[in-house]
Amino acid sequence: MFRFAFTGAAFVALLSLLAFSRSSVQPTPPPSWLDPHRGNVERLIKEAQADQFAWNRLAELTDTFGARFSGSDNLARAIVWATETMKKDGLENVRTESVMVPRWVRGNESLELMAPPQQALPMLGLGGSVGTPAGGIEADVIVVKTFDELNQRAGEVKDKIVLFNAVYTSYGQTNAYRTGGASAAARHGAVASLVRSIGPTGLRTPHTGNQTYAEGVPRIPTAAITAEDAERLQRLADRGERIRVRLRMDARTEADVESFNVVGEIRGSELPDEIVLVGGHFDSWDVGTGASDDGVGCIVTWEAARLMTKLGIRPRRTVRVVLFTNEENGIRGGNAYRDLYLQQAEQHVLAIESDSGVFAPARIGFTGSEAATRMMRDIGTLLAPLGLDNMGPGGGGADIGPIAAAGKVPMLAYQGDAARYFTIHHTPADTIDRIAPEEVSKAAAALAAITYVVADARERLPR
Amino acid sequence: MFRFAFTGAAFVALLSLLAFSRSSVQPTPPPSWLDPHRGNVERLIKEAQADQFAWNRLAELTDTFGARFSGSDNLARAIVWATETMKKDGLENVRTESVMVPRWVRGNESLELMAPPQQALPMLGLGGSVGTPAGGIEADVIVVKTFDELNQRAGEVKDKIVLFNAVYTSYGQTNAYRTGGASAAARHGAVASLVRSIGPTGLRTPHTGNQTYAEGVPRIPTAAITAEDAERLQRLADRGERIRVRLRMDARTEADVESFNVVGEIRGSELPDEIVLVGGHFDSWDVGTGASDDGVGCIVTWEAARLMTKLGIRPRRTVRVVLFTNEENGIRGGNAYRDLYLQQAEQHVLAIESDSGVFAPARIGFTGSEAATRMMRDIGTLLAPLGLDNMGPGGGGADIGPIAAAGKVPMLAYQGDAARYFTIHHTPADTIDRIAPEEVSKAAAALAAITYVVADARERLPR
Repeated sequence: MFRFAFTGAAFVALLSLLAFSRSSVQPTPPPSWLDPHRGNVERLIKEAQADQFAWNRLAELTDTFGARFSGSDNLARAIVWATETMKKDGLENVRTESVMVPRWVRGNESLELMAPPQQALPMLGLGGSVGTPAGGIEADVIVVKTFDELNQRAGEVKDKIVLFNAVYTSYGQTNAYRTGGASAAARHGAVASLVRSIGPTGLRTPHTGNQTYAEGVPRIPTAAITAEDAERLQRLADRGERIRVRLRMDARTEADVESFNVVGEIRGSELPDEIVLVGGHFDSWDVGTGASDDGVGCIVTWEAARLMTKLGIRPRRTVRVVLFTNEENGIRGGNAYRDLYLQQAEQHVLAIESDSGVFAPARIGFTGSEAATRMMRDIGTLLAPLGLDNMGPGGGGADIGPIAAAGKVPMLAYQGDAARYFTIHHTPADTIDRIAPEEVSKAAAALAAITYVVADARERLPR
Repeated sequence: MFRFAFTGAAFVALLSLLAFSRSSVQPTPPPSWLDPHRGNVERLIKEAQADQFAWNRLAELTDTFGARFSGSDNLARAIVWATETMKKDGLENVRTESVMVPRWVRGNESLELMAPPQQALPMLGLGGSVGTPAGGIEADVIVVKTFDELNQRAGEVKDKIVLFNAVYTSYGQTNAYRTGGASAAARHGAVASLVRSIGPTGLRTPHTGNQTYAEGVPRIPTAAITAEDAERLQRLADRGERIRVRLRMDARTEADVESFNVVGEIRGSELPDEIVLVGGHFDSWDVGTGASDDGVGCIVTWEAARLMTKLGIRPRRTVRVVLFTNEENGIRGGNAYRDLYLQQAEQHVLAIESDSGVFAPARIGFTGSEAATRMMRDIGTLLAPLGLDNMGPGGGGADIGPIAAAGKVPMLAYQGDAARYFTIHHTPADTIDRIAPEEVSKAAAALAAITYVVADARERLPR
């Protein structure tokens, strides 16, 4: 989902920026402390890039199980597969850890333009939305571009359906219309709300995603429409045409169901209680096959441990892979992990998440103290063969956020190209075919190298 | 739909190529016969590019009426609008000409992957397909890449659903799997057929289009799936996985209904019985809003007459704009036009169609005799300010094809970039927002200039 880096992380990102800019005034030769690790780093990178193993595993996952939405049979089956496969890989202490997750059911849904008559508009209900009555809600549409415009035109909103036609600039800037649009509209008496999909214009591609109702405000149905249709309705409104739609959504929230984080380890040879945590989230939205969000993040972080196991590399500290459940509509997996390991939070040396795809050009982001940043920049020099030695700020992740906050744990993120990622984010087009095998291998190589060095280094990564 | 240029036109295209290559060995200075027309050509080009009139009209058409499928209320309403608007433009002899058209009804449809379980796959039934029984057809899938592979594996086909996973190369090469796949599969006992969408990989975007059942072969339901899912099912098959789907389609063909070609003219000042025919098709598929296929073709050819009318230009011959109905699934409009004007077929001096979009880079294609090609190349020099003076072969169009065949009429086509066009062709993404206003103005300018010069020239365009 890629939420953390754009929300609570603002202040740490600033700290991190300062750390990066300071250290950049002192160019240093490659530090000698890395020397004992260079050989294994080279082996890990070579092995990761020797074939398409990681891409093939991602294909097996996404082809076989498809979308893995919280509470779905597909996710449950995929979790069984991941657990068994981790064991076959030779990871240690492979286990599932129970997490109660929400179960939102999309059901049938449709949006029909009634005036001017008459055409179905592609749409996706937003996660957590209530449904409409069985016959749907038919109402006139008011189109606004911003929350400010909504407030200025508050008198026109009652009994209408509000369309937020906010042009996508970045996920961080535009996302608020998806997450908060329904309640903003309901405050002024709207009967439903629509949001222009959060992402670059695709091919009439709606983007789903979660939304949250504010307390004390009526809960109204809410859905995303495509950029193309948002512009179309905007033009009709600008021409003074009456716009009327019928929205039908069966959406409902059922009782929580049990799901699991999947955990596998390489126990540390000398400091097994110190943990380098690497992972992604194994759940996805119910459209697409969750390839970039976040199947690939799970596969490439899992690869860090698999590659070490295959090459017989056991670092001094424990490497722990976690495939978190329910990031998309709850972050229950990340919260449950924190709750379960709260007493060991400070024993987490580094938390690594991959949850923004692996599309080229990728970069690595780190968030930590100045001392930690210096050490990570040293490690970053080992990634020069991958073209990833330009480590920058922006470490973080929704799933590692809770444990990191509890233990003041430095965070690292693998960040794929945002333009490509957000084009398919939360859409049916989040599929594997658009991810190049070499992009997956490169991410696996980089994360394996970083994980290994941090886990094996004499010096613990500073707080 | 862009069919003609790839089918019957092969031999004329060859002739045309010869004509172009011969004439290209004799470079000549701009011919003086054009001099009386240069002033008006400049005025037409300037007026076409003065504002976004044509784009705005296309927006009004596609925003207000959306998809205009044969037999739909939307098409009927749009035809009324076009007739009234042509009259307001000041075109002469504005009229509708009755055409009985097929009425294929898509109804509800879905495709669900049952093994491995379980996910909905985006799909679009193909035009003319029969439906399934109410509960759908559930069967195992056999994936083939070519007709040859189908024939080689004929013994495996009985009671299966055949998926044709033919990778898109060009519309002409791949289209046969859509138009003929169902009957090819049915010959070997398949119970339904699926085809990989004909077009470049989009964003999990299915492409619909027409298909034709062969005589004497059982009629089985048939639909298009996305390139991504075709690749997914191919990978599953390659791994030896069992693939099972359930296809549900309500599709049915109802009784023909009345529709209309819309006709408007500028009567020629000296030779009113000689006709320069310009047009596109006004119907579209039932998904998208028919912006590129072929709303824009209608608008830019209509602009030829509107611009002349606005500037008070009345050429020596008659300019006739025709917005043809039912190109997509019948070509009934083009055939009806030929039938109605059969006695005047030879009086058609040139037939112009725009039915492959206006995406840049565009070019102009012409099909005619060597003498006609020489004259058209002269006229082409007037389009240098538009960057369109590189006229090549490939004139033609599904709607003008019948009258051209009857009267041996030279044909000219405005050809938008094929890669961009076929990405959105017959998909929900055929919308106006991806067409730049300047692309529309440029096409209108070019077609107005050509239409005017051919209609006004002293010499009639040779056969």
